Amino acid sequence: MINFEFHNPTKVVFGKKSESQVGQLIKSFNGNKVLIHYGGNYLFENGVMDAITTSITQEGLEYILFGGVVPNPRLELAKEGVELAKREKVDFILAVGGGSAIDSAKAIAYGLVNDFDLEDLFMAKVTTSNIAPIGCISTIAATGSETSNSTVVTLEYNGEVLKRSYNHDCARPLFAIMNPELTFSVPPYQSASGGADIMFHTMERYFSNTEDVKLTDKIGEAILQTVYQEVPKVLTNPNNYEARANLMWAGSLSHNGLTGTGRASDFPVHKISHELSAMYDVTHGASLTAVWGTWSRYVLNNHINKFAQLAVNVFGIDPNFEDLKETALNGIVAWETWCKDIGMPTSLSELGVNPTDKEIEEMANHAVMTGGGTIGKFFKPLSQKDVVNIFNLAM
Amino acid sequence: MINFEFHNPTKVVFGKKSESQVGQLIKSFNGNKVLIHYGGNYLFENGVMDAITTSITQEGLEYILFGGVVPNPRLELAKEGVELAKREKVDFILAVGGGSAIDSAKAIAYGLVNDFDLEDLFMAKVTTSNIAPIGCISTIAATGSETSNSTVVTLEYNGEVLKRSYNHDCARPLFAIMNPELTFSVPPYQSASGGADIMFHTMERYFSNTEDVKLTDKIGEAILQTVYQEVPKVLTNPNNYEARANLMWAGSLSHNGLTGTGRASDFPVHKISHELSAMYDVTHGASLTAVWGTWSRYVLNNHINKFAQLAVNVFGIDPNFEDLKETALNGIVAWETWCKDIGMPTSLSELGVNPTDKEIEEMANHAVMTGGGTIGKFFKPLSQKDVVNIFNLAM
Repeated sequence: MINFEFHNPTKVVFGKKSESQVGQLIKSFNGNKVLIHYGGNYLFENGVMDAITTSITQEGLEYILFGGVVPNPRLELAKEGVELAKREKVDFILAVGGGSAIDSAKAIAYGLVNDFDLEDLFMAKVTTSNIAPIGCISTIAATGSETSNSTVVTLEYNGEVLKRSYNHDCARPLFAIMNPELTFSVPPYQSASGGADIMFHTMERYFSNTEDVKLTDKIGEAILQTVYQEVPKVLTNPNNYEARANLMWAGSLSHNGLTGTGRASDFPVHKISHELSAMYDVTHGASLTAVWGTWSRYVLNNHINKFAQLAVNVFGIDPNFEDLKETALNGIVAWETWCKDIGMPTSLSELGVNPTDKEIEEMANHAVMTGGGTIGKFFKPLSQKDVVNIFNLAM
Repeated sequence: MINFEFHNPTKVVFGKKSESQVGQLIKSFNGNKVLIHYGGNYLFENGVMDAITTSITQEGLEYILFGGVVPNPRLELAKEGVELAKREKVDFILAVGGGSAIDSAKAIAYGLVNDFDLEDLFMAKVTTSNIAPIGCISTIAATGSETSNSTVVTLEYNGEVLKRSYNHDCARPLFAIMNPELTFSVPPYQSASGGADIMFHTMERYFSNTEDVKLTDKIGEAILQTVYQEVPKVLTNPNNYEARANLMWAGSLSHNGLTGTGRASDFPVHKISHELSAMYDVTHGASLTAVWGTWSRYVLNNHINKFAQLAVNVFGIDPNFEDLKETALNGIVAWETWCKDIGMPTSLSELGVNPTDKEIEEMANHAVMTGGGTIGKFFKPLSQKDVVNIFNLAM
C-alpha cells in the first residue's frame, strides 16, 4: 500500500424528494444568486426544475437559468456560462443533470474566479486550486462527478477536437443531491452506459501494480458486484427504486477516490476511449466497453492473478488453480456476455465506428499525449504503438 | 433503502511518516496555538511526540502539552482541559493517541466554545453544532473516532458512573493523520480488541431492519472480511505494515458513516457493553465480544437470513439452504473460534467480570435508558428484561 490522501467533503443528501432541499443547502453555503446549469428540457416537463426553483425562491435567493449542455460537454458553452455568470454577478453554480452538466458547471466555476483562459487549464498549461462555490443535483447514475474531483470537457485546440480533464480536490461540489427517482426516466442505453461508466471508475483503479491493498480491492469488488447485478434489474424495471438507488450510490463511491486509496493508477482505458468520444461523439460508457475486452486480453499475461481475482470475486467464475489464465479469460468472457445482455458494445464495430488507419494513428497519438508517450504506467505501460494495436484488435 | 445524509469532510493523510505533516495541516486550518492532548508517555520514548512538536514549531505555531488520558476517558479530565485551553488562549486541539485521546479532545473542543456544562451535553439535556477546530494523529486501529462524528466519555452523574456519547457531524476532525507504523507497538490484547471494535462498528449497522441496502451490505462485508483476516496477521507479526494499514483504514471506514448509509441502526450491543466498561473499566472491544455471541443467539430467530448471509459472506461458511438457521449458527461459532484464537473473551467470565443480580439490574437499567426503555429498535427491540436475560446468558 502506498501513502495517500483522501478528502471528500461533499455533503451527500440522498433519497426521495431530496431536490426540495436545494434552496436550504445553497443558503447554508452562503449562496445568494444562483446560475442553474443543465442540459435536457425534460427537467421542465417532469416538474423537477419547478421543484428546484421553488425551493430556491422560498429561501429568498435569486437564480438564472443556463441550459444547452450536451453529452461530452463543450468548453465553448462553459465559456459562455462564465460570461453570463460574471455579467449577472452570480455567486453560486448549481448543476442539474448528469456528468456532462456537472462537469460543464465545474468548468464555469473555474472560469468565474480565475483569470486564465480555460483552454490553458485543460491543456495542462496552468493549474489552480480556486473554484467558485458549486453544488449539484444528479439525475443519472454514472460518472460520479457529483462527488469527484475531476472535470472532463471537449475542446477544440489547434484545429483538433480533444477530450481533456483537470483534477483537483477543490472541484468536489459542496453538496450533491441524489434522488434515485430522478433516474427512473433514464433510457435503457444511457442506463447501461452509466453502469459501465461506474464499473470502469473502479476497474481502472483495481488494475494497479500496487500490492496488498486488500480492503480497497474488496470495496472495489463490492461496487463491481453491485453494478453487475443491478444494471440488468433497472433495464427490466426502470422504476425499481432499490436497484436505481444502489447504482446511484455506487456511482459516487466508485469515483470519489475511495476505490483508489493506497494505490496508483492512471486510467489507461479511459485515455483510449476518450479519443473515441472526441472523434465520434459516442457515449462515454459505451466507448469504454468497446475497448476493455481487447485491452484486457492485450495486458493479461502480465497480470493473470489479478484478472483471475476479478473473475472469481465479481463475475462468479469457479477458480481453476491449475490454470488461472483460463479463469481470467472466463471472467472476461462473462463480462462480455453481460455487456451483450445489457446492450453495450464490446468492439468498435458494435459501437458503430470504423476508423481509418490515419484516424487510429491520430487517436493513439492523442491518447498517449498526456502521459508523455506512455499510458498505463502503474499497471502495463502502453506506447502509442500499443494503443494502435488495441484499436485494430478492437475493430 | 431509506433516505440518508453522508458528510465526511475529514482530510485523511495516510501512510508512513505522515505525522511530520501535522504543523502544515494545522496551519492550513488556521490554527495558531495548539493544545496537544494525549495519554501514554510512550509517545515521548518512541520519538513520535518529538516529530509532532518539531513539525508544529517549524510552522511558527505554539503548543502546550496536556496528557493524562486513560482508556474509557473521564469527562473530569476534559473539563480540566477546557480550563487550561481557555487560560492559555488555545485555538486548535490536537489529539494524539487512540479513541480515548481523540474523544477526550473532542469533549475539550466542545467545552472550549460552548457555555453549558459538558455533563448536560452527554446526558442529552442540551445540543450543539459548535466545536473548536480539532485534528488528530491516530495511533491505534480501533474506534475510528479520527473520522467519526461521535464522542464517548465516562462520567459520574448523580453518584453513578455512566458511559455516554454525543454524536454530531461537527465533531468530525478537520484532519486525521494515520501512520500504520505508529500501531506496530500496540500490544496484542489491544490490537485484538481494536479489531473487535472495528468489526462491531460495522456489525451494529449491518444488523438492521432496512431492506435492500445491497451496496452498503457488501461494503460492510468487505470491512468485516478485512478485520477477520488481518487481525491474526498483526498478532503473528506486529510489524506487518500491510496488515496494520488495512486494519487502520478499515477502522476509519467502519465508523465514518459509510457502513450505515441507507439504513437505520441504534447500536444495541454497544449500549449493553458500554455498561460493562462503565462498571468494570474493561476494554471496549473486549466488552463487545463478551456479549455478541449471546446477543446474536437471543435475536437470531427473527433474522435468520441476515445471520446466514454474514456466516457465508464473511466467515466462509458453506450455505445450507435446507436449514439456514444451521448456517447462521455455524457463522456464530466460527466467529467465537476467531475470538478465542485472537484472545478475545466470548463471555463475561472470560472478560473477568462476575456481576451480581443487583449489578445486572443496574447495568440493564442504564443500557436501555437512552432508548426510552428499549434498545435495538431498528432490528430486534430489547427491553430492560431482555438485557438482564442477555447478561445472565452471557455469564
